[in-house]
Amino acid sequence: MEKIKVAINGYGNLGRAVELAVTGSEDMELVAIFTRRDPADLETASGLAVAQSEMAKWVGNIDVCINCGGSATDLRHQSPEAATLFNVVDTFDTHAAIPQHFAVVDQVARENDRLALISTGWDPGLFSLNRLLGESILPQGETYTFWGPGLSQGHSDALRRIDGVASAVQYTIPNEDALESIHAGEQLELSTRDKHRRECWVVLEDGADGEAIREQIVTMPNYFAEYDTTVNFISQKEFDRDHTGMPHGGTVIRQGQTSDGTSQVMSFKLALDSNPEFTGSVACATARAVARMAAEGARGAITLFDVPPVKFSPEAPEALRKRLL
Amino acid sequence: MEKIKVAINGYGNLGRAVELAVTGSEDMELVAIFTRRDPADLETASGLAVAQSEMAKWVGNIDVCINCGGSATDLRHQSPEAATLFNVVDTFDTHAAIPQHFAVVDQVARENDRLALISTGWDPGLFSLNRLLGESILPQGETYTFWGPGLSQGHSDALRRIDGVASAVQYTIPNEDALESIHAGEQLELSTRDKHRRECWVVLEDGADGEAIREQIVTMPNYFAEYDTTVNFISQKEFDRDHTGMPHGGTVIRQGQTSDGTSQVMSFKLALDSNPEFTGSVACATARAVARMAAEGARGAITLFDVPPVKFSPEAPEALRKRLL
Repeated sequence: MEKIKVAINGYGNLGRAVELAVTGSEDMELVAIFTRRDPADLETASGLAVAQSEMAKWVGNIDVCINCGGSATDLRHQSPEAATLFNVVDTFDTHAAIPQHFAVVDQVARENDRLALISTGWDPGLFSLNRLLGESILPQGETYTFWGPGLSQGHSDALRRIDGVASAVQYTIPNEDALESIHAGEQLELSTRDKHRRECWVVLEDGADGEAIREQIVTMPNYFAEYDTTVNFISQKEFDRDHTGMPHGGTVIRQGQTSDGTSQVMSFKLALDSNPEFTGSVACATARAVARMAAEGARGAITLFDVPPVKFSPEAPEALRKRLL
Repeated sequence: MEKIKVAINGYGNLGRAVELAVTGSEDMELVAIFTRRDPADLETASGLAVAQSEMAKWVGNIDVCINCGGSATDLRHQSPEAATLFNVVDTFDTHAAIPQHFAVVDQVARENDRLALISTGWDPGLFSLNRLLGESILPQGETYTFWGPGLSQGHSDALRRIDGVASAVQYTIPNEDALESIHAGEQLELSTRDKHRRECWVVLEDGADGEAIREQIVTMPNYFAEYDTTVNFISQKEFDRDHTGMPHGGTVIRQGQTSDGTSQVMSFKLALDSNPEFTGSVACATARAVARMAAEGARGAITLFDVPPVKFSPEAPEALRKRLL
């Protein structure tokens, strides 16, 4: 069988992770990594860097292009642009803006006869899938999503913008007691503060006032004021040794009742050593599904909600039924 | 929108559970419960009992028929028979016989222009789905399935067949230490005995020899000899008070590596107060998907692997994307 020809568009943490996943998949072939930088200066593991301005020349030679830009700015234009040329996958994760992004990408993809899957990954992505299954199977009930333990990129950025902070990370820690009670079938009303706490690890610049910075952090609205926040000051050496990974994860729980007093609990949990590598792996499996669904005639924008799970696997359906059902 | 017209075929524990789920779904209407017994003698919650011999008269008035017989004998013929008349769903759970059952049902369904989804539920079913997703997203890794804590019907039956046993249940208990180690990313080689233990609760008949029966249980090949098995003798009163529910559940864990030393763990867990009620709820959501996919032209046999998740929900795709993605 012919291999699925994949391109990567954007080479940051996620682009590198997708490269790892695609080159590790026997049924896929990585053919190009599009970059805004000078390809001659970009060191990639596969040596496939190509200038983004050359993208149009690759039409017909790429089955699916995985857009690896950031949601804040890149993907809003990267996905519609790439969808004029290729079938695409993206990890657009600004929840509130998904309907609009979907509409824009859908129109472009239809006009250009492409298939585009937006917002794959884990949240949005696998977590969304589990929220959908939970509600559909147990219509009477409550869904809870907990994030962490894990590094929050946005909150870490907020710390680093403070004057006097040399390096910083923030970990989101779910309330394990609440999680346990919900798993046991207890229904809880949880405030923002009840669900998660925030743990900051900060390296100060020489001469910075630690106590003033601590106060600035724990009172920062929208980021930290609504949570129980702890601030730990450490040396750059400790920081470099202990806090450069990007672990993350979380749990989606559906707690339902099928009759009076009969509690049923479904939960899906991720514990990830590397958030970008896992997201890259999900994007890679999603790209396989998109290449196949496009070959079968699907067009326009879709999400993970629209993908028959069999499409994610390189194996034949009959083998999967026999081995995994 | 017109409601989905559902029939139930067979009215045991599962049939009753499906009745509960379907009558609780606003987009569905239960129209008939087919039974081999005299419908006049069958008390159903909905009062919709119809003789199984009348099934053919309902063609054209049923969007999907949920077959609720047992796998051991009923479903092997019940599903192909019903698929000559209706789109069908079944919960066939004899894992080794699934490929053959699929082939038989597929042929009948195609010949009669029907869609038939076999082997829904949780294992096979949601657990299978998680095994498939785990392997597809993390191709380098190991999948572990643990069952319980929960009541095993087959093992309870084996206890009740012993002379001198008045009532009995058996609970399968997963090894929580092993589960925890795997969640933490540790790779384990587990024997049958390492994964689960078996806990029996037995009411003796008057004058029965408890110690002889205990010995007979713990040495019974295929059922108990391969496990650490404990036998507790209790009174009929205690049995009736504490052991008539049908709890079950379990965990599917995929432990993968996306690069050297980078561990990624996905896990899906069920904790069910009532195994039949949960299976009935899954069958009900599956029936919704089958009715819709059949209306869109799908034919032949399929499994949960082939269903786009959006089909399980009564809500519109755009609302689901906005609310759950």
